[in-house]
Amino acid sequence: MADQLSSTFAALADPTRRAILSRLSMGEAPVNELAQPFRMSLPAVSKHLKVLERAGLIARGREAQWRPCRLEASPLKDVADWAEHYRHFWEESFDRLDDYLRELKGSALKTRDLKNREKKHGAKQRKQ
Amino acid sequence: MADQLSSTFAALADPTRRAILSRLSMGEAPVNELAQPFRMSLPAVSKHLKVLERAGLIARGREAQWRPCRLEASPLKDVADWAEHYRHFWEESFDRLDDYLRELKGSALKTRDLKNREKKHGAKQRKQ
Repeated sequence: MADQLSSTFAALADPTRRAILSRLSMGEAPVNELAQPFRMSLPAVSKHLKVLERAGLIARGREAQWRPCRLEASPLKDVADWAEHYRHFWEESFDRLDDYLRELKGSALKTRDLKNREKKHGAKQRKQ
Repeated sequence: MADQLSSTFAALADPTRRAILSRLSMGEAPVNELAQPFRMSLPAVSKHLKVLERAGLIARGREAQWRPCRLEASPLKDVADWAEHYRHFWEESFDRLDDYLRELKGSALKTRDLKNREKKHGAKQRKQ
């Protein structure tokens, strides 16, 4: 059996399933309502819902006919916590990009100043 | 082709691959060093590395023999950002649990006070 975090990540590795969670973040909904925007058959949506349910990302009502789905967000806390460990790595890489861009801008300004100075110098020489 | 976020989530849906990222967060390493703690064959580890590389989570050196792997954390920022949207849902559910536990504690204290009072009252009556 897969560990909880692996099941969560596997369930999230599909844009339809993430869209279903996004829809459920606006309130619970029955299966047919969830199926509509995806133009999917009910069995296809039910399959996605089963994956989400097994991962503990949704819960479903007990009524046999109308089993509304609702979001269960606590596994997403584990995802956020896990990713958070790597924050300083991505911040570091953005910082490096930032430094690089600043350097690039600096040398572009220097080149411009140099050219301006040369232009002025040329103009002075022509005046004399 | 899967979208970037789906590839990232799929790559993370495996404890060995997450352990490899965790190891690489301590510094770059060659494949044989990454294989050691998992008692895995080199081809098995290489397969995992390919999944991580395709998802942009690692990059590999160019040297044919010794191709050190290093962590590329920027896709993890997208994971954290995505999960962050659901923060108030998990905080809400923890708040609800908190309220429930507080309620439970409150009623347990009330029951204890009531029992203590009854005991004292009983003791008084026995004394009289």
